[in-house]
Amino acid sequence: VKGLVHHMLNLVLTESAIELVPSDLWKHPAVMKRSRLIGKNPGQMLLDRSYHHGAMLQIKDGRKRGRPDIAHFCLLNALGAPLNLEGGLRTSVHTREDKLIMVSPETRLPRNYDRYIGLIEQLYSHGKVPAKGKTLLEIRSETLSEHIRDIDASRIVALSRAGAKSTIQEVVEMVAAEPNPLFLIGGFPAGGFSSQTTGLADDIFSIYHETLDASIVVARVIYEYEKTMGLSSSCLTSHVR
Amino acid sequence: VKGLVHHMLNLVLTESAIELVPSDLWKHPAVMKRSRLIGKNPGQMLLDRSYHHGAMLQIKDGRKRGRPDIAHFCLLNALGAPLNLEGGLRTSVHTREDKLIMVSPETRLPRNYDRYIGLIEQLYSHGKVPAKGKTLLEIRSETLSEHIRDIDASRIVALSRAGAKSTIQEVVEMVAAEPNPLFLIGGFPAGGFSSQTTGLADDIFSIYHETLDASIVVARVIYEYEKTMGLSSSCLTSHVR
Repeated sequence: VKGLVHHMLNLVLTESAIELVPSDLWKHPAVMKRSRLIGKNPGQMLLDRSYHHGAMLQIKDGRKRGRPDIAHFCLLNALGAPLNLEGGLRTSVHTREDKLIMVSPETRLPRNYDRYIGLIEQLYSHGKVPAKGKTLLEIRSETLSEHIRDIDASRIVALSRAGAKSTIQEVVEMVAAEPNPLFLIGGFPAGGFSSQTTGLADDIFSIYHETLDASIVVARVIYEYEKTMGLSSSCLTSHVR
Repeated sequence: VKGLVHHMLNLVLTESAIELVPSDLWKHPAVMKRSRLIGKNPGQMLLDRSYHHGAMLQIKDGRKRGRPDIAHFCLLNALGAPLNLEGGLRTSVHTREDKLIMVSPETRLPRNYDRYIGLIEQLYSHGKVPAKGKTLLEIRSETLSEHIRDIDASRIVALSRAGAKSTIQEVVEMVAAEPNPLFLIGGFPAGGFSSQTTGLADDIFSIYHETLDASIVVARVIYEYEKTMGLSSSCLTSHVR
């Protein structure tokens, strides 16, 4: 029994800055140093600006890449939210290389960053984690467009500074009647969505006059959705669960 | 010019699980191993369950200690929030040993966990960071009671599962007329506030029937305060700043 939640909110962290170190950086000193330190081959390591900044200066679109911490903060804000605990949220991570990470709502993600990175690296190696038992994270090659078809979203809203000005409350109230709304939130540190992404959205809204951290946007969309659906008051009574 | 914000919201992460490794653990194998790995003396390292789990099994109140990641996530959700960006939020961290960390609203905290830990360790060594220029973080010995006096809070609300059931919206609306309200949010992983802390609060409220991550509570209190104060709509017009 999952309480009073009838509808499902879908969140896709979009074009997220998660990828393995690309092969042309494997010989870079910054990458080799980190590789020796943690005892992993460069090709099994996630690209990470904290550790590979020197190596990333030379790559294309560098400022939008190598930030797996963004998805970490977003996922912690999503998975720990009452909406998720009550079974009303589906979260996934789309990467700029069109990998798709399915995240089970029951996942208890490591809080420690190095352990989180280790888990995602294990996911890239094995396709799913944990190796045994119920799968919590699964990765596959899938475009955002294919993923949206899988979700069968009834309305797709992208949040971006380039969108029409609105408030989160107005945006969420607009989709409240939808059985299966989907929010696209950018999982990258700078710049905007690609035109491919914005082309998939029914609406694009800007909820603040400056760039906000993706994790803060995630927290607000979920909370506002809970309020609009009446979850924040209903779940206080113990008979709900 | 700081827009339309007249009031100030105060957040104190309370009894936070941040401390240096206590001296009776300096010789523990788990601590010495980590010490060698990162090249720091045990006494200059933060106690961290991710790295010192084995050593922490034997200490008093172990399950409430050694979780500096909690303050990290809370501070990122606070410092990145529009209320903070517009100058309407003051955030500080009280620890279980009665250390008080003042956090400048302009602080851009490292996203990377190891860098954040390094920064807090530097803070414990030097009393403030950065060493030169405008101080962003400062630490001193101060009880919660003394800190509350410094803040001169007009009303003190503690959020705890042991409190009276309410919603965040109701709690925030209750303090909306206060010039200088203060929220106490636990910066520890398990259990409740000490009686010393609850004795300082004017009100204690429970906003969910299970324990929520402190960082999620922080995000919600701030967002609800912004809404109650009309910040979420007013700041969309460019003339505000």
